[in-house]
Amino acid sequence: MNDPDCIFCKIITGEIPSRKVYEDETCYAFMDIAPFEKGHTLIVPKDHITLLTDLPAETLTHLILTTQKVAGHIVKALECDGFNLLQNNGECATQTVPHVHFHIIPRWNNTKLCWHSSKKYDSEEQIIEIHNRIAING
Amino acid sequence: MNDPDCIFCKIITGEIPSRKVYEDETCYAFMDIAPFEKGHTLIVPKDHITLLTDLPAETLTHLILTTQKVAGHIVKALECDGFNLLQNNGECATQTVPHVHFHIIPRWNNTKLCWHSSKKYDSEEQIIEIHNRIAING
Repeated sequence: MNDPDCIFCKIITGEIPSRKVYEDETCYAFMDIAPFEKGHTLIVPKDHITLLTDLPAETLTHLILTTQKVAGHIVKALECDGFNLLQNNGECATQTVPHVHFHIIPRWNNTKLCWHSSKKYDSEEQIIEIHNRIAING
Repeated sequence: MNDPDCIFCKIITGEIPSRKVYEDETCYAFMDIAPFEKGHTLIVPKDHITLLTDLPAETLTHLILTTQKVAGHIVKALECDGFNLLQNNGECATQTVPHVHFHIIPRWNNTKLCWHSSKKYDSEEQIIEIHNRIAING
């Protein structure tokens, strides 16, 4: 269930490096390289499926429960005041990679909402520091 | 598990009228009165819970599987090219009603994306016509 041309499939297999936040048999979470906010994380099923509406019930169930867990962990780790969960289906909905993914976007009070890719980290060191805080071991 | 001051709890009980799209024992879907796009639908658990991270696993599982079903139905009924799924947690993330809700936002190719409330219907008749198309009986 892999698409050799899919960037997310390549991230899952390790062909393209990523800053992993969580992994299990069914899904993989990693820091977005085009973040809307610090700690912006994507979570994907390992199987290459394009749309939410095409996910098997078992996969979708596991994906949302894991998303809940990862989001809760990020909120604590980064002391967020909240977060957005966003999942786009189709190019018309700004889905840029045709492999189902949920965006977990940390938010803080008194921080202007950003809904587009922007340089959110001050330095490589800051990315590493935030990655260390949000990565879930095991 | 009702909050007498919550507008969504009042919609679920019928104290506030709504254009219902789907209902079962666990969740309720209805047309957003402040739509980003035609057919914009909200789906909520019947229990009053504020954040995604506070939902019991069973409720979240049912909610996402029902969201998948309702979204698939809307895509077919309105001949959409895609949709966005959005779920906001906390005022900092633009959560305006403190009762968990997923936004299902229909999208079409060549239609400019709108991410804020706007008058999307031409008339009351058009609202009724679209409601008739997306409502799921039973």
